[in-house]
Amino acid sequence: MSVRKPGKAALQQLLDRARFIGGYRFKLVAVTDKECTIAMPFRRTLERPGGTVNGPAFMAAADCVMWLAIKRHIGIEHDAVTSELNTAFLNAARRETVYCSARILKLGKRLIYGIAECHDRRGKIFTHHSVTYVRI
Amino acid sequence: MSVRKPGKAALQQLLDRARFIGGYRFKLVAVTDKECTIAMPFRRTLERPGGTVNGPAFMAAADCVMWLAIKRHIGIEHDAVTSELNTAFLNAARRETVYCSARILKLGKRLIYGIAECHDRRGKIFTHHSVTYVRI
Amino acid sequence: MSVRKPGKAALQQLLDRARFIGGYRFKLVAVTDKECTIAMPFRRTLERPGGTVNGPAFMAAADCVMWLAIKRHIGIEHDAVTSELNTAFLNAARRETVYCSARILKLGKRLIYGIAECHDRRGKIFTHHSVTYVRI
Amino acid sequence: MSVRKPGKAALQQLLDRARFIGGYRFKLVAVTDKECTIAMPFRRTLERPGGTVNGPAFMAAADCVMWLAIKRHIGIEHDAVTSELNTAFLNAARRETVYCSARILKLGKRLIYGIAECHDRRGKIFTHHSVTYVRI
Repeated sequence: MSVRKPGKAALQQLLDRARFIGGYRFKLVAVTDKECTIAMPFRRTLERPGGTVNGPAFMAAADCVMWLAIKRHIGIEHDAVTSELNTAFLNAARRETVYCSARILKLGKRLIYGIAECHDRRGKIFTHHSVTYVRI
Repeated sequence: MSVRKPGKAALQQLLDRARFIGGYRFKLVAVTDKECTIAMPFRRTLERPGGTVNGPAFMAAADCVMWLAIKRHIGIEHDAVTSELNTAFLNAARRETVYCSARILKLGKRLIYGIAECHDRRGKIFTHHSVTYVRI
Repeated sequence: MSVRKPGKAALQQLLDRARFIGGYRFKLVAVTDKECTIAMPFRRTLERPGGTVNGPAFMAAADCVMWLAIKRHIGIEHDAVTSELNTAFLNAARRETVYCSARILKLGKRLIYGIAECHDRRGKIFTHHSVTYVRI
Repeated sequence: MSVRKPGKAALQQLLDRARFIGGYRFKLVAVTDKECTIAMPFRRTLERPGGTVNGPAFMAAADCVMWLAIKRHIGIEHDAVTSELNTAFLNAARRETVYCSARILKLGKRLIYGIAECHDRRGKIFTHHSVTYVRI
């Protein structure tokens, strides 16, 4: 029997219960087997001098959206933890909602590898990430 | 005339004024031309399910300590921004103060590259990072 | 006046003259402003025990195809050098032609950042890379 | 009973038999439980325009020295394959022997993570790498 894949409501609930990322108030925008997208609303605490979104916020978003993309595939009851996260900061985001989309490139028995991008609503890219999770 | 290198007090002041990393309450532990170390006290908001420190906190620490290490060399009045940050999560940290130490491997005219490690007070490693900054 | 973009013939000629990558015998398959693809024919010297293509060959391909993608945009007479190359090895390639495609995500005044993927002719992915070049 | 750790002669023999890296003619310089160093003699085929050592050669050296460092710990008869290799190119090497040293930061049951550096005989750094292997 295959895993029953959690839908948008179940994954949003998972997000809401995750206190450790509560500060970011991520919202699930869309999820399919192929791609998962969350939104990170702008808040003053995310602001760097100069009015841009700080780096750790992008990395938290990338880590989170990949976690949801993985949960979609392996099910809520199974888990995996981040083993590597590489980030390139390409363009600044200014007091705006940041979207972050993830795609899994390999769903292995032990390692799960994917890429994530933070972008604005029109697709302008802020950051590019590669993320590796280990199943536990 | 060479840059007058900021000392511990000046760099701690810089940290205190940086609202965007205020949530982490980093403290500067030690700084020399060779290495810079900060401490991140444990707080409930850093906690992942299972009682471990969450990933973005380590990455924020690595980004921050490298920024201080760079300021030490280029001076408070000059700046640089993160262009890449690669992280490997090696061991979990449990409800404890996390230290993060950075070392610059290349201080170029345009790019500054270094490595950072998060560890406990005895040197047990939690995460390893490579960090690239671009001078602006 | 903008840069006159080199076409397929000019870029293949550039490849042929680059002795340092001569051992790989890369062929340019296709190039547009958006994407560049090269082919790396299988050779016994690329073989790892077990009959798979060795890791450095994939990295050489990624480095090379990004270099061509950049030349397409900045012109043959301008140059850039690799500053970072991150690689994830996802699936093994077995005694077969490997294709490598690159896409530039940011063409900055100083830094150029893109991603590359090695894959088979049907699109099965072998490796994923992020590549940073610095203009000189 | 613990693994019997292979010494310098056994690891050099392993290197000599590995045809896929034969083109580089790596020599094992030193090996302890803590660090492993190889040498890559300069050859014309490693040369980039401008007389510098090409990038793939450094990455091949990093991959190779980490493999030896791992064999030292897990034994010749066990194996592991590279899953990720991140490289920063910091300084050029010019027609000279390049040394590459690796240190394991985590020897896990599934993942092995370490860092490697290519440098000259006096310690001037050319490249910095982080390398992840998966045990098989």
